[in-house]
Amino acid sequence: MSRIITLLSDFGWEDGYVASMKGVILGIYPEARLVDISHGIPPQDVPSGAFVLTTTYASFPDHSIHLAVVDPGVGTERRPLIVQAGKHFFVGPDNGLFSRILAQAPLWRAWELDQREYWLPQTSQTFHGRDIFAPVAAHLAAGVPPHQMGTPCEPKIENWFQVKMEREGVLCGQIIHTDHFGNSISSIDKSSLLQLSPVLRKLAVEVHPHRLLPIVKTYAQVPAGQFAALLGSHGYLEIAMNGGSAAKELDLRRGSFIRVILPGSKKR
Amino acid sequence: MSRIITLLSDFGWEDGYVASMKGVILGIYPEARLVDISHGIPPQDVPSGAFVLTTTYASFPDHSIHLAVVDPGVGTERRPLIVQAGKHFFVGPDNGLFSRILAQAPLWRAWELDQREYWLPQTSQTFHGRDIFAPVAAHLAAGVPPHQMGTPCEPKIENWFQVKMEREGVLCGQIIHTDHFGNSISSIDKSSLLQLSPVLRKLAVEVHPHRLLPIVKTYAQVPAGQFAALLGSHGYLEIAMNGGSAAKELDLRRGSFIRVILPGSKKR
Amino acid sequence: MSRIITLLSDFGWEDGYVASMKGVILGIYPEARLVDISHGIPPQDVPSGAFVLTTTYASFPDHSIHLAVVDPGVGTERRPLIVQAGKHFFVGPDNGLFSRILAQAPLWRAWELDQREYWLPQTSQTFHGRDIFAPVAAHLAAGVPPHQMGTPCEPKIENWFQVKMEREGVLCGQIIHTDHFGNSISSIDKSSLLQLSPVLRKLAVEVHPHRLLPIVKTYAQVPAGQFAALLGSHGYLEIAMNGGSAAKELDLRRGSFIRVILPGSKKR
Repeated sequence: MSRIITLLSDFGWEDGYVASMKGVILGIYPEARLVDISHGIPPQDVPSGAFVLTTTYASFPDHSIHLAVVDPGVGTERRPLIVQAGKHFFVGPDNGLFSRILAQAPLWRAWELDQREYWLPQTSQTFHGRDIFAPVAAHLAAGVPPHQMGTPCEPKIENWFQVKMEREGVLCGQIIHTDHFGNSISSIDKSSLLQLSPVLRKLAVEVHPHRLLPIVKTYAQVPAGQFAALLGSHGYLEIAMNGGSAAKELDLRRGSFIRVILPGSKKR
Repeated sequence: MSRIITLLSDFGWEDGYVASMKGVILGIYPEARLVDISHGIPPQDVPSGAFVLTTTYASFPDHSIHLAVVDPGVGTERRPLIVQAGKHFFVGPDNGLFSRILAQAPLWRAWELDQREYWLPQTSQTFHGRDIFAPVAAHLAAGVPPHQMGTPCEPKIENWFQVKMEREGVLCGQIIHTDHFGNSISSIDKSSLLQLSPVLRKLAVEVHPHRLLPIVKTYAQVPAGQFAALLGSHGYLEIAMNGGSAAKELDLRRGSFIRVILPGSKKR
Repeated sequence: MSRIITLLSDFGWEDGYVASMKGVILGIYPEARLVDISHGIPPQDVPSGAFVLTTTYASFPDHSIHLAVVDPGVGTERRPLIVQAGKHFFVGPDNGLFSRILAQAPLWRAWELDQREYWLPQTSQTFHGRDIFAPVAAHLAAGVPPHQMGTPCEPKIENWFQVKMEREGVLCGQIIHTDHFGNSISSIDKSSLLQLSPVLRKLAVEVHPHRLLPIVKTYAQVPAGQFAALLGSHGYLEIAMNGGSAAKELDLRRGSFIRVILPGSKKR
């Protein structure tokens, strides 16, 4: 079966940038199965790109290649990479985009791309997605091994959003992404929550001082117009509103702090 | 030839939700030909989703599978379905999304999905698109018959928008969808119009009290900035503006009433 | 290998219009490899469509077919076309959409589509994308030669945006497109710039009276929040802002004039 190449970027869909990358790929590896993850990452927002990529790639079969280009430093010294994490491959800039994937992978390897024969003959200074990353992803799909296209390296790891136990029974995290429905997704993952309490409905979530929300199982479990927290399908705690945008109504932004509280242990 | 699976949802394109469904499908049925219908249905707007699906699916070849997820009741008692209408298949929630298709199909069958072995091993409470509907669509494409994945049932039929003969020579309908160009598309279909008059240009369309529009054949038939009604490519009467948004300029919304009048019979 | 068919339009992604075209294509030529270029061309904006198409199609392999529908005159006398330019094929309305491609191609041929047996049996007055252009593109991909579907003709050539030497050392052009990042892309191409000076960094770009910008190589070469001009990846001079929207901050619109100046020769 032919290889899957997914694409993620902040290029939007209005221009021809995404199509240019696909045209280059199909010229090198005509049987590619191309699937868009998103091209609506906010411009140059590497943490958002990292979140969407991390929570999506594992739905694809093993041996998929994920081409990810959110690249504010294009044309500067930042390195171009191939990363292998488990049985998935990633191609893109070395700016932290793959941090969460590397942190979660039991085994990974990375190569700095330095063999120009696998790039387009002429590379622009502003569009490495088309000129370097797309052709490398296509050659990788066609069977060229990573070590033939680059040199082993240590990729940059960024830790933009943390989760910490503020005090006993109080877990503090941050909003890392707002989705299309206005759900505010936090950095607090399932395992951190379960450490606080194995029974999630005993917990409450504080989004603003003294504003506590219950943890529920699905959106329709609270009345229309009401807020709740729940463990989203991506495995992270999210703040939602039934039938509306929690992000807007509660004024939650990227970086906003939230707290998960195990009642009874708060004031200790 | 491999099966076509189309996708329609209110998930937007910014997040990885649509790609997650595609990854799951390709893991089960790698040769799927995936085609997006729309992921820009307004959030949780089942009637809009039903309109877009109804007016698009028939352009696809027989045996196509249409995965449609506009699902405000996800995680509640609403049933997950496979529907067969003519030679097309539909997979999605039982909330009226397939009403118009069922109403128009000469023959249909439906099954409530209840065989969990065809779902993902772990199903979330909030993303049945990825966990139930995508794998079922993929298994269906791969040749698993519907009755093996579900139990025959009667799907829910909603009739959100009606057309009625208000009095002789006056047909009343409602706006059901605003398209990308600002055309306001009504519930009045071709056959209802022809019943009123076999010669469409004899009819006038009242969008507001005393505001009558002619029925024309194409947008450029009225001067730039002018309004007209026409039988759209989807088979429904639409209100359009040459070079602008009729919906905005005439303040037409989903549910707004319009009347088609055969002059001379109005006051009888 | 099966043929690539790209799609470009002003149809947006919310409705089912694009999918209808794809369904029709797959019904005629099931093995089509479909790739979207853009469906976010501003409504009825033929010059923008022409720009995006011109700067993208060449990334695709030879023998690709480009279906391009920005068609304000649908249903009127404007002709439907197949155009061959070099080894690429184009299908769409004769309204100037292919002007730049024709102007740049060493060799081209064009045919007016007049053989209705290659169209859908019923053609609407408002959606030739689905009813004429999509089936013709599919038949072309399947091997029907252009002369069997149409009659040789001379397509319309529009020259919306010009570049001229205003006086010695001063080159004047216009903004022709604003991209997703807010970069303002001008009509001034690489060869015109090189005629002015073989060393680009000697040039300055005047975007408003007395507002001069340097020409740099990549976005990050100026500090965050600063403006610069650069030769974009599409081969045209663009005005950019590091970390923001130049178009918005400098109030540049489609048609705005800019000047490239070789200092020292300005006042001659």
